[in-house]
Amino acid sequence: MSIVVVGSVALDSVETPFGKVENALGGSATYFSVAASFFTSEIKLVGIVGDDFPQEHVDFLRSRGVDLAGLERVSGKTFYWSGRYGHNLNVAETLSTELNVFEKFAPKLPEIYRNTDYVFLANINPELQMDVLKQVGDTKLVVCDTMNLWISDRKMELLDTIKHVDIFVLNDAEARQLTGESNLNKAAKKILDYGPHRVIIKKGEHGAVTFTRTSYFSSPAYPLDHISDPTGAGDTFAGGFLGYLASTDDLSETNVRKAIVYGTVMASFNVQDFSLDRQRSLTKAEIEARFAEMRAITQF
Amino acid sequence: MSIVVVGSVALDSVETPFGKVENALGGSATYFSVAASFFTSEIKLVGIVGDDFPQEHVDFLRSRGVDLAGLERVSGKTFYWSGRYGHNLNVAETLSTELNVFEKFAPKLPEIYRNTDYVFLANINPELQMDVLKQVGDTKLVVCDTMNLWISDRKMELLDTIKHVDIFVLNDAEARQLTGESNLNKAAKKILDYGPHRVIIKKGEHGAVTFTRTSYFSSPAYPLDHISDPTGAGDTFAGGFLGYLASTDDLSETNVRKAIVYGTVMASFNVQDFSLDRQRSLTKAEIEARFAEMRAITQF
Repeated sequence: MSIVVVGSVALDSVETPFGKVENALGGSATYFSVAASFFTSEIKLVGIVGDDFPQEHVDFLRSRGVDLAGLERVSGKTFYWSGRYGHNLNVAETLSTELNVFEKFAPKLPEIYRNTDYVFLANINPELQMDVLKQVGDTKLVVCDTMNLWISDRKMELLDTIKHVDIFVLNDAEARQLTGESNLNKAAKKILDYGPHRVIIKKGEHGAVTFTRTSYFSSPAYPLDHISDPTGAGDTFAGGFLGYLASTDDLSETNVRKAIVYGTVMASFNVQDFSLDRQRSLTKAEIEARFAEMRAITQF
Repeated sequence: MSIVVVGSVALDSVETPFGKVENALGGSATYFSVAASFFTSEIKLVGIVGDDFPQEHVDFLRSRGVDLAGLERVSGKTFYWSGRYGHNLNVAETLSTELNVFEKFAPKLPEIYRNTDYVFLANINPELQMDVLKQVGDTKLVVCDTMNLWISDRKMELLDTIKHVDIFVLNDAEARQLTGESNLNKAAKKILDYGPHRVIIKKGEHGAVTFTRTSYFSSPAYPLDHISDPTGAGDTFAGGFLGYLASTDDLSETNVRKAIVYGTVMASFNVQDFSLDRQRSLTKAEIEARFAEMRAITQF
């Protein structure tokens, strides 16, 4: 089953205590697509880049089977983000955000994208997310992400958008910020009242939890001795999650739980190197082995 | 199998956004003993109280089957702690600590206590923990807790003590403080190098993890919409953990994992009311039902 993903395609400069990269491949749609490509070959990306976007990145995305018919290329510079992480690696300090061509981004879905079963609205302005929803026909599952900026600056628009999504994915700080509830259970229940059928709350090194009105599931993170660069972990999680779901086309509670664990596994690989570099050499066998380990470390 | 527990027996005044209690029953040995008493009837407490310690608390501990032959009663006032929690409930603000008779505490094990298989060294000065170890004969399992104060003020003595314990239990902040490692996996491995066969790291609302040189297990916390008072959660966890282990007398990896989940369940009940009040009405059936829920929310 195909997935349409709308989000950013970017060039990132990132510094952590363990190294740095400059103008490396980044962006929410990029991380999502590459992670999902390990599970399904039908990923249709909607995004925008400038004329400085290196051909090698286009080639890499194509080599992963990502459909780039929806990737606009316009004159100007590609979205650029630079940030730094300290020793705790939980919070990025943004050094600069240059929206560049992304500022004028108005997602237009190619005709062949409009008939899709799965949609991922990566972290962009909720008004644009809504525009995308208006362009797709009947879907099986719409998953939506966001960030603190939209919660503070576009809260009404965000609440409007998530009324129309099936699964809302955000991190624990964002869930607390959006609902004003410090207790995560209460925050989750409030979010379900806003409309989504399911909420997934990412907790970084503490794993992820998911709530519906009748179910609850908690997955730990995969234990790692070393994290090189946490950039893109959330989008990689979403890519593994929705990639697995779309490939199995099974939305049962049991399968959604497996999808969350696959998302966790993909994120755990991605943070072991800078940019998407770990995913460049990753194999399906490595993913399956780590999935099996997740079972082993949670069983009692 | 019998458990000897050495720790504080206290009177606590606690205020949270959800209420307050004054001079309520508290102390690490108390929380531990009551939680363990749901699993085994052979709990031998070593502690000290003043002549102000209410008879009703003695009666309550006796009603739970706790052996109080090792509870010294001396003239003076009982150890008193008062604290306050804000809305996030993760960190207590200590308003006052009055050691009182606890200042002169020199644990003396009654003759009948010296032959025991299981020992819990609750959070007290590590030199006193070591004194206790010298008084017991051959044991099957020694479990030890600590706190930030001993890590900062008695680090050498603490490292000396944990050389002689089988399982070291501490929270994530303490593990980082003790080892200087921000990565919890690395912190755990360093702690294993100090001597214990196993380390259990409590992460509050994020559950608990345990490491040996060859195994890793992660348990979530039981999801709660409301927490009244987090005081004693760690000691209650330890009581459920060691109470279950001693009652089954099975130290296999599988059984240790079950014990961690029983500890998690006991702690989750305890924080639902002030002091040990929730445990006063708790039933074995409620414990088993929540244990079954823990299985349901972690399976995939």
